[in-house]
Amino acid sequence: MIMRILVIGGSGTIGKAVVKELSPRHEVLVVGRSAGDLRCDTTSEESIREMFVKAGEFDAVVTATGRVPFEEFSKLKADHYLAGLNDKLMGQVNVVRIGSEYIRERGSFTLTSGILGRSPVRASCAAATVNGALESFVKAAAIELPKQIRINVICPTIIQESMDKYGAYFRGFDPVPLAKVALAYSKSVEGLQTGQVYEVLY
Amino acid sequence: MIMRILVIGGSGTIGKAVVKELSPRHEVLVVGRSAGDLRCDTTSEESIREMFVKAGEFDAVVTATGRVPFEEFSKLKADHYLAGLNDKLMGQVNVVRIGSEYIRERGSFTLTSGILGRSPVRASCAAATVNGALESFVKAAAIELPKQIRINVICPTIIQESMDKYGAYFRGFDPVPLAKVALAYSKSVEGLQTGQVYEVLY
Repeated sequence: MIMRILVIGGSGTIGKAVVKELSPRHEVLVVGRSAGDLRCDTTSEESIREMFVKAGEFDAVVTATGRVPFEEFSKLKADHYLAGLNDKLMGQVNVVRIGSEYIRERGSFTLTSGILGRSPVRASCAAATVNGALESFVKAAAIELPKQIRINVICPTIIQESMDKYGAYFRGFDPVPLAKVALAYSKSVEGLQTGQVYEVLY
Repeated sequence: MIMRILVIGGSGTIGKAVVKELSPRHEVLVVGRSAGDLRCDTTSEESIREMFVKAGEFDAVVTATGRVPFEEFSKLKADHYLAGLNDKLMGQVNVVRIGSEYIRERGSFTLTSGILGRSPVRASCAAATVNGALESFVKAAAIELPKQIRINVICPTIIQESMDKYGAYFRGFDPVPLAKVALAYSKSVEGLQTGQVYEVLY
């Protein structure tokens, strides 16, 4: 079955790989803050709703988006945590909340958390907090979503292609190639499971 | 060694049991929003700081406090999630952030999450999100806290003494007595582990 899939953050590092993995088999729309087939600022509920209205019918939503401050524990203020909670957590939660009104019966949401919620490193407290929240949200939402909608979250470790930028924070972590991370999104979108955390650790 | 322990939420259901468990062996101060040896509104950073200044020297902080809306997924708005994140999550995060300046060397923080982050029920999405965030926060903070400070989080299932009030949400869950939940707090405060999630499932 050919699906119509929205990839929010589809111009980002992970998003591009997801688009590459899914587009040979499906109709994929790239959604971005400033580029793409559709525009969406996931920190604005209004922008999310406008995007879904413009999108027309769709079967699946992937979110590979959201920012969280990286800062040492002793320097993290409440506002740093709140910035991450408002952007990466509530951005994705709001996509699910609002998107569940528009998505087709048996549609799916696939969110993105990250290894730091399970395996923290220096300066990762805010990111860890957000990732842990996302994984528990997904487990809880899975049992209450209407229309047989499914939801999963991908928890990737550090990505090979990002080692230049983030490698110094992740010494000793075994980096995975983007193409492998993208497979987990395919598993979620094209499979039938729900409420799962798909770890991509290698 | 006799410790000076602050139990924030010490007049609540769990807090009282923790005070009962720890006070025969330690100097325990009850901290509450509207009652107790010290007053503190954990949603206010100013109130938290004032409380720690008034408390004088202390070795351990237990937080058994924080509210989260219970509401079905389809009725949860962004504000419901944010209410829980601001109260139960950031209240405890801010106690750790600010308290780490005042606590003695080798002191400890013991927070409270809850079973819903792992085993969700109807109307638990906001609570689950907050609990998941707390557990990942604790793992991440444990490796960065200064002064050899320890931090753990207690994840209790439904409590026997609360079955009248919440039992209908938790059918099939095996309720634990408060006295047993209180033991997990003792393990955290009087033990030496850090970065742990102590589940009390039975």
